[in-house]
Amino acid sequence: MKKISTGIKGLDDILGGGLPSGRCILVCGGPGSGKTILSVQFLYNGATKYDETGVYVALGESPVHLKEDLGSFGWDIEKLEKDEKFVILDASPLRTIPKSAQLSLGSQNFRMLSLVEAIKSRTEKIGAKRVVIDSISSLILHYPDESERRNAVLDLVHAVTVLGATSIITTELRATALEREIKTEEFLSDGVIVFHTFNERGRLIRAIQIEKMRGVSHDHQLRPYKIYKDGIEIFSKESVLARA
Amino acid sequence: MKKISTGIKGLDDILGGGLPSGRCILVCGGPGSGKTILSVQFLYNGATKYDETGVYVALGESPVHLKEDLGSFGWDIEKLEKDEKFVILDASPLRTIPKSAQLSLGSQNFRMLSLVEAIKSRTEKIGAKRVVIDSISSLILHYPDESERRNAVLDLVHAVTVLGATSIITTELRATALEREIKTEEFLSDGVIVFHTFNERGRLIRAIQIEKMRGVSHDHQLRPYKIYKDGIEIFSKESVLARA
Amino acid sequence: MKKISTGIKGLDDILGGGLPSGRCILVCGGPGSGKTILSVQFLYNGATKYDETGVYVALGESPVHLKEDLGSFGWDIEKLEKDEKFVILDASPLRTIPKSAQLSLGSQNFRMLSLVEAIKSRTEKIGAKRVVIDSISSLILHYPDESERRNAVLDLVHAVTVLGATSIITTELRATALEREIKTEEFLSDGVIVFHTFNERGRLIRAIQIEKMRGVSHDHQLRPYKIYKDGIEIFSKESVLARA
Amino acid sequence: MKKISTGIKGLDDILGGGLPSGRCILVCGGPGSGKTILSVQFLYNGATKYDETGVYVALGESPVHLKEDLGSFGWDIEKLEKDEKFVILDASPLRTIPKSAQLSLGSQNFRMLSLVEAIKSRTEKIGAKRVVIDSISSLILHYPDESERRNAVLDLVHAVTVLGATSIITTELRATALEREIKTEEFLSDGVIVFHTFNERGRLIRAIQIEKMRGVSHDHQLRPYKIYKDGIEIFSKESVLARA
Amino acid sequence: MKKISTGIKGLDDILGGGLPSGRCILVCGGPGSGKTILSVQFLYNGATKYDETGVYVALGESPVHLKEDLGSFGWDIEKLEKDEKFVILDASPLRTIPKSAQLSLGSQNFRMLSLVEAIKSRTEKIGAKRVVIDSISSLILHYPDESERRNAVLDLVHAVTVLGATSIITTELRATALEREIKTEEFLSDGVIVFHTFNERGRLIRAIQIEKMRGVSHDHQLRPYKIYKDGIEIFSKESVLARA
Amino acid sequence: MKKISTGIKGLDDILGGGLPSGRCILVCGGPGSGKTILSVQFLYNGATKYDETGVYVALGESPVHLKEDLGSFGWDIEKLEKDEKFVILDASPLRTIPKSAQLSLGSQNFRMLSLVEAIKSRTEKIGAKRVVIDSISSLILHYPDESERRNAVLDLVHAVTVLGATSIITTELRATALEREIKTEEFLSDGVIVFHTFNERGRLIRAIQIEKMRGVSHDHQLRPYKIYKDGIEIFSKESVLARA
Repeated sequence: MKKISTGIKGLDDILGGGLPSGRCILVCGGPGSGKTILSVQFLYNGATKYDETGVYVALGESPVHLKEDLGSFGWDIEKLEKDEKFVILDASPLRTIPKSAQLSLGSQNFRMLSLVEAIKSRTEKIGAKRVVIDSISSLILHYPDESERRNAVLDLVHAVTVLGATSIITTELRATALEREIKTEEFLSDGVIVFHTFNERGRLIRAIQIEKMRGVSHDHQLRPYKIYKDGIEIFSKESVLARA
Repeated sequence: MKKISTGIKGLDDILGGGLPSGRCILVCGGPGSGKTILSVQFLYNGATKYDETGVYVALGESPVHLKEDLGSFGWDIEKLEKDEKFVILDASPLRTIPKSAQLSLGSQNFRMLSLVEAIKSRTEKIGAKRVVIDSISSLILHYPDESERRNAVLDLVHAVTVLGATSIITTELRATALEREIKTEEFLSDGVIVFHTFNERGRLIRAIQIEKMRGVSHDHQLRPYKIYKDGIEIFSKESVLARA
Repeated sequence: MKKISTGIKGLDDILGGGLPSGRCILVCGGPGSGKTILSVQFLYNGATKYDETGVYVALGESPVHLKEDLGSFGWDIEKLEKDEKFVILDASPLRTIPKSAQLSLGSQNFRMLSLVEAIKSRTEKIGAKRVVIDSISSLILHYPDESERRNAVLDLVHAVTVLGATSIITTELRATALEREIKTEEFLSDGVIVFHTFNERGRLIRAIQIEKMRGVSHDHQLRPYKIYKDGIEIFSKESVLARA
Repeated sequence: MKKISTGIKGLDDILGGGLPSGRCILVCGGPGSGKTILSVQFLYNGATKYDETGVYVALGESPVHLKEDLGSFGWDIEKLEKDEKFVILDASPLRTIPKSAQLSLGSQNFRMLSLVEAIKSRTEKIGAKRVVIDSISSLILHYPDESERRNAVLDLVHAVTVLGATSIITTELRATALEREIKTEEFLSDGVIVFHTFNERGRLIRAIQIEKMRGVSHDHQLRPYKIYKDGIEIFSKESVLARA
Repeated sequence: MKKISTGIKGLDDILGGGLPSGRCILVCGGPGSGKTILSVQFLYNGATKYDETGVYVALGESPVHLKEDLGSFGWDIEKLEKDEKFVILDASPLRTIPKSAQLSLGSQNFRMLSLVEAIKSRTEKIGAKRVVIDSISSLILHYPDESERRNAVLDLVHAVTVLGATSIITTELRATALEREIKTEEFLSDGVIVFHTFNERGRLIRAIQIEKMRGVSHDHQLRPYKIYKDGIEIFSKESVLARA
Repeated sequence: MKKISTGIKGLDDILGGGLPSGRCILVCGGPGSGKTILSVQFLYNGATKYDETGVYVALGESPVHLKEDLGSFGWDIEKLEKDEKFVILDASPLRTIPKSAQLSLGSQNFRMLSLVEAIKSRTEKIGAKRVVIDSISSLILHYPDESERRNAVLDLVHAVTVLGATSIITTELRATALEREIKTEEFLSDGVIVFHTFNERGRLIRAIQIEKMRGVSHDHQLRPYKIYKDGIEIFSKESVLARA
């Protein structure tokens, strides 16, 4: 299986080279864990180091806030945008759901379809090889039934997979315990990267884990990570408690 | 990203300078943890040290009780009020919900709209740079559906953000365990500060944690804090168990 | 803020002097923890040591049983009753709810109103400075909806607060774990005192904790307590495990 | 408060003399913990040692099985029955609920009333000073609503209390964890005795605890117990782990 | 109380001789714990060592699979069948419930009645002294309401008890934790034997426990067990961790 | 009972030789645990080492992705397909459920019937001795009622059993805790193999366990495993913590 480099220090190491090309990877984490930083870094490195254009689908923050938040990392996203190497699709209005839409499931499906269409057109326009959808939690919330939710996630995974690009979908982790319920999305995607935060005798430990990566021989352990001025870094040879 | 100082000992240290300017921060904590003290101190320091006026939206206590409770800290809030540097908006009647309002969601939205309008007019009137809404838990309780709740919080966050002021919204933490469910509000706000209380071999440990602060390189650890005669202080270099 | 002494050994110490005058304090505990003993002792000491009359609203036990149960403490409550320094309001019939009342919320509110009226008239009659309502759990049970419950508690807190007296409301703690869900009542009252019982390696530990006390600089730790022949005593300088 | 001896080794010690006379005590425990043995022993000792007649209300087992089960203890219950010092009221048919009764709450209340009437007539007939109702769990199960359940338990407690006899009501503990949810019945009765079974590093520990005993200064600790050929014995001076 | 030997190594020891004659015992365990092996061994030993014929009611597996599974133990069940010392009643079709039966509770009760009738006729035909029903979990599942379930179990226990035989009913344990919720069936039967599986520092521990045995003075501890080529064996003198 | 070799290093050892011939085995695990790898390896070894043809029913991934994912293991599945020794039945469209099907249970049953028919025809066509269904979780999700789910699983188990082949059905484990709820499927199948992932002091431990294997004397312990370039390997003599 062909792999594509994330260019993130330590991450390619624990991935055994990179993400599986053309597949859809889920990134799960709590608030402030670094889901957005990792995702944007994946796109930024693609555009600047590997000559692969990227599409960032903003479902969480508005693009204005996003750029401001990422400002400290010294990534010149606006230049990349001008060069059409990085496209931000502002889907943040989709976070909220109009009252009318709550009345019919059809309209909810219509919203999902519109999103898929928008992603498709941007991806094709710049020939993007990397796609990030950050995050799907609000969208999925509107499917109360577990089997409908499963269908919606499958539809989305299928839609980004047929585009041929390697994609990251982020989702919210709702508890801070290391032992946790496994989410439907984790079984449906081709790979799962989890950001953990847990308490060990009064210290909060932050760790990243490749829970699953189909077709890729990878490291399964918890690994410490840190967010530096130039992005996230994973300490691929260290154990979390040694570092703590 | 521009940061604004809280003026609270130790807090600016773990924040790496201060709160991100113009953003909406969530402060979560259990009863008696110090949410109100931290919030008011943020406003008080703004008005007295940084020449930034502030609005305190009282959704929990009546202003009379609030001033009495804060009396021991030696903060001359009434003088600041006279100088129009500190405004208390008494929204405590909104804690209860009239029977009629329970009948229609519309009226509930109307209440939220009224609140937003009132905050807006006070903020503009004194050109406030700092806004505190303490607390939203009662308001949110009236939205039984998770997706409606998400929408309501997003509306409120959006409303205070467009005002241009840096805002703190407080919310109740409903369990005393360190491992906890993460709330919708934590994902929707730009930053999250959590007050923890947990048991360590028969001692109650109190700690503060910057769980998330978009665009700000900050300390993620649990840090001990204490409430002194002149306000809250965070011990930014200490670990919680060392101090316990 | 003015404080009033409870006269209970050790309790005034951890309270930093006493309860905040004119406020409403919640006392939570499991069965047999000592909620009633602490409450009555607060009233008894008021009447005998501080010349403050008190009203005890009996929602749990009948006054006959109550006096019998407290007989071993050597408190001459009947003499105080004759001197109109201590009034017991028998509200124990309110524990049960008539079938008809279940049909309409209105009648439930009517019951709450009657209770409030009865408390008010007794308090005014003897000029009571201390009021105890023991316990509200049965009353609250009849409000199935969380937001209605919040309203009912707020109504009651408001009612006793406007009387000007310092009041204690007791409520049942429903689990024996130290880590617990925090109840609505804890956020709505001005102070919270919690009785804990937990297991530490085969020994049951009993402890009291000032969880919250608005406007009062207090001790936050778990402290051991014991029930002696002359009432409850708190060991304000000891840690629970040292004593265990 | 007057106390009456149970005559059970160690139990009177931790009770500080005995059960409070004329009150209603709850005994909680899991399957096989010894609830029935303790209850019958309380009655048997009353009849043989303290000249107090007793009524045993059998809601769990049929009287035939009960006597067989207690056969190994060498208690001559049949002789006591002949002498009218011990009466067994066979209420085991009440464990099941006829289909028709499920249709109307009224009929359920009717069943409770019949039970109360039957207990009353037997108690008065032999002038019983001790009453045991073993167990109420099946009866209570039919009240799905928490507030109705509270009312039903209060009715039953009131009914046995007005008889003037000292009564024990048994109820099932539904979990094997030491940390547990506290049941409504525990708050409504005058005293609570709990049988615990918990795991301590691979050993099951069995312990008894006086959780609550109004008006009685008692031991609150977990104490080991054993069931011998002549009944239950509590080791009132030992800690559970020392013995384990 | 008369006891009957199970003939299982170590089990009669912890039972203080054997199972109480004519009573109904519940055996609870997880998948693969050995419920079926223990039950069949009880019948096989009865037929070959104690001259007591037995009926095995197969609600879980088909008789063909059952015999195959037990083949390795060297028990000649087919010979016992020919000699009418061991009868297998194939009730496995009752595991599933026809769609029509879901429509009316009456038909569900009819199924239970048919089962009881079939058990009765087989038992009487060969004068069986031992009856095993393995397992009731599927049957009970169809009673959604807790009080109906209680009635159904009571009906079944009563039915097998009046036959005069000593019976074992097996049921599924749904969690692997040592601390668990106690099931209705455990309170309703005369004895309870529990198979436990739990994790102790990375090792799975398997243990058996006599939780309850009315009228029998028995061992309450967890005891290790093993399944050998000739059946189950309990190590009645060992503690689980010593062996682990 | 006849056993058939899996050919997987270490697995036949802990199975005491192999899987019971002609039976249906459940394999449970979290995302990325290795369920698919073990299952395919079982089929691949059958076709290449033991001359037993196999059918893989793909309910999770599309066959194209599956082959790509397994590419790194150097198994020439396409050659086996050409030789009719390995058949992949693409049932991945069944993962989603059409809206119309949600309206009637009948259509859901029809889908299950179609699947069973398709499995049957493929199995008979190549005389398959090994069948894998990977995974049933999506299918089962559509049965909201526990008793219907039980019926559906029984139907499927029965269907694959009557084919005479030895079959593996995989299912998703929904939590990462070692102590877990036991699923209906575990009681209904003839054997259960569980993949565990749990945290031990900051290290993730991966282990496999034979929870149940009817008619087979097997190892019950947790055993470490690893996924190598040529497939899964189980360390049948090691304990999980020793290796960790």
